[in-house]
Amino acid sequence: MAIHVKNLQQAEKENIQEMIEWLSSFGKTKKDGVTRLLYSKAWCQAQKALQHKMEQFGLATYFDSVGNLFGQLQGMDLGPVILTGSHIDTVAEGGKYDGAYGIIASLIAVSRLFETYGYPKKSIEVVSFCEEEGSRFPLTFWGSRNTIGMYTLDHIKDLTDGEGISFLDAMKQAGFDPAQYQTPIRKDIERFIEVHIEQGMVLEKNQKTIGVVTHIVGQRRYHVRIKGECNHAGTTPMLYRKDALAAASQLISIVTNIAKEVDSHLVATVGRIHVSPNVPNVVAGEVEFSLDIRHHKEEILDQYCQMIFSEFHQVSKAFHTDIDYSQWMNVKPVSMDTELLKVIRKIAQQKNLPFQDIISGAGHDAQVFASIIPANLIFVPSKDGISHSPKEFTSVKELEMGIELLTEVLYQLAY
Amino acid sequence: MAIHVKNLQQAEKENIQEMIEWLSSFGKTKKDGVTRLLYSKAWCQAQKALQHKMEQFGLATYFDSVGNLFGQLQGMDLGPVILTGSHIDTVAEGGKYDGAYGIIASLIAVSRLFETYGYPKKSIEVVSFCEEEGSRFPLTFWGSRNTIGMYTLDHIKDLTDGEGISFLDAMKQAGFDPAQYQTPIRKDIERFIEVHIEQGMVLEKNQKTIGVVTHIVGQRRYHVRIKGECNHAGTTPMLYRKDALAAASQLISIVTNIAKEVDSHLVATVGRIHVSPNVPNVVAGEVEFSLDIRHHKEEILDQYCQMIFSEFHQVSKAFHTDIDYSQWMNVKPVSMDTELLKVIRKIAQQKNLPFQDIISGAGHDAQVFASIIPANLIFVPSKDGISHSPKEFTSVKELEMGIELLTEVLYQLAY
Repeated sequence: MAIHVKNLQQAEKENIQEMIEWLSSFGKTKKDGVTRLLYSKAWCQAQKALQHKMEQFGLATYFDSVGNLFGQLQGMDLGPVILTGSHIDTVAEGGKYDGAYGIIASLIAVSRLFETYGYPKKSIEVVSFCEEEGSRFPLTFWGSRNTIGMYTLDHIKDLTDGEGISFLDAMKQAGFDPAQYQTPIRKDIERFIEVHIEQGMVLEKNQKTIGVVTHIVGQRRYHVRIKGECNHAGTTPMLYRKDALAAASQLISIVTNIAKEVDSHLVATVGRIHVSPNVPNVVAGEVEFSLDIRHHKEEILDQYCQMIFSEFHQVSKAFHTDIDYSQWMNVKPVSMDTELLKVIRKIAQQKNLPFQDIISGAGHDAQVFASIIPANLIFVPSKDGISHSPKEFTSVKELEMGIELLTEVLYQLAY
Repeated sequence: MAIHVKNLQQAEKENIQEMIEWLSSFGKTKKDGVTRLLYSKAWCQAQKALQHKMEQFGLATYFDSVGNLFGQLQGMDLGPVILTGSHIDTVAEGGKYDGAYGIIASLIAVSRLFETYGYPKKSIEVVSFCEEEGSRFPLTFWGSRNTIGMYTLDHIKDLTDGEGISFLDAMKQAGFDPAQYQTPIRKDIERFIEVHIEQGMVLEKNQKTIGVVTHIVGQRRYHVRIKGECNHAGTTPMLYRKDALAAASQLISIVTNIAKEVDSHLVATVGRIHVSPNVPNVVAGEVEFSLDIRHHKEEILDQYCQMIFSEFHQVSKAFHTDIDYSQWMNVKPVSMDTELLKVIRKIAQQKNLPFQDIISGAGHDAQVFASIIPANLIFVPSKDGISHSPKEFTSVKELEMGIELLTEVLYQLAY
């Protein structure tokens, strides 16, 4: 592999701000957001532009069968690879930093390392995963789960997007013909390290710039349905009612109150509710709501679920309603590699970067790798905790601190 | 006015069951419901068929300027009129009894009276009010409120239905050209008496056939809005949240719990809720819900509203959300004529009709008249309390008992 040193020096002049703006130009919306859904036109342009940029930076690039883009800085030892990067896709009307920052940070870190130290011992690869958000098709981590061999075409062959376009057609149209599919599994990856915006307000509230992620939470999601009886709001005495919305309200209060009691790291959210018939003068006959529960310890999730569901049944009985619920997501919590955690903390300390340990409440590509190899995740702050929005923002100073830390971590891992 | 006695005798053979089925054929839906919205084709057909039926029964008929249909059995004294009847319109996918029963019962009662006793002293008129439900245009009691002079064209000139058709155009199309409008006010009505299905389950639960309505409740309706903050359901600790749905849930529990405490006749309902963005993994930023409160005493309504709104503010503060609410309906409670109540109870007793006093939790044309003249309302049971549904049902035996009572009441008032 030829490394074009001249290009790397040239790239060095590119700064993080410019690169964030550049990448966000692919899929930019009228509201100054970014919509870069998997295999869309904007997505194709972004991945191709990134490939070109990686090559300008002197990396050897390739796309795998599902559209994950890799750029390698070859190491002197032929052996396992250190993988770093994040995902290129966004939610609809998302921001400039979610995913994109992790790819750009990795690219800049690798270029600076080469500039300063030349070739590493171990190969380092920058990855731009094709998909993580699940915002076009009802499936998440399509990129990283292909890389570890957890997903194949079988998992998506029946999926369609909101416009009825099949996953397979979308792939083909983007230039990744399923007929040419070869397993994208990579068995040569030794560890994965990702930097990402926090998407929460913990770092900001604590005035820290670096979040050293110790765990990524497990997620359990449920559909809860309460069946009562539609009745006339005027002619049905309170005692005769089977009010599904009154029952649901009590359940939502239980979700919130018990979550606060059980553990300060536990979060439980009812974000969506659907009421039938949803008319002011009719007692609600049926309610469905979503329930999203997250914690980094299975035993806490177990304890919490047991507590609320036992109360759910009692409340439902008291309201003369019927309840049932079904779980449709069960993502296990994962721990980041504890050995590297120590290294990361030490580097942050030496470099005077204001840091703290943090638990990631959102899912990230790092958790996919953490199930099979050592993986780590580093956060930088999100202004006002906002993400998945055109208002997503992290200052250049903070973005730079993330790159500084990542660069040193990669150095210690690969040189 | 000529009364065709032969026709009346012929009509006598018509039974209540057949007439209910006959009237429900105008606007019958595929689901065996009835949709007869104001000024619709089905509505026009029903009113014209009713006019024909009234004339067959020997009544002198006329339509007023808004489409209320009157059929008179002239009294020997030229003087004030006893008015009886109900409304012809239905909700979408309504039942066969709501409104329709009151018109048919009045018609049968009058025909039986004439058959047995000949001409009354006081004129009796059967009315089929054009509109009561408010299910096509956002306005209720268009029929009865025109009759008492409370509504004029001014009140509807800017209204349109869900399809954008203006009230005025709909009137004109139905044959009631607003340009020809003459005030439908009737100053010669001495009292109004209506029979109606209960639309609740109180009579059924108490195994009574006749509800002697003492009051019609007052209704206060509000829009309540809670403004919190949208946040990521995974990355926002419970303590940092401004969860509008968690707050709303607590408010709805307050609505329900305090209603049960304050008075057994008080009903309070949150039937509609709108959550934004209504996504499972986003903490809700904004919630709006409806609030419908009913009781037959103003002071209880005052007391209840004061209690809940004071709690609303406290809860909203505890959840770090902002709350505001606005009242968009304030219908005062009314009492039925107490003198006639005694007469009605006495007749029911003499005739061994299982009866009880009852408060109407729904609005009825009788309340419009009660604000200016003596008015009364009699209920028959609704099976399972169901109304505004194809499942609406009252047995022939119960319908007949209502007619029997009405007939005797009209006799005592007019003969």
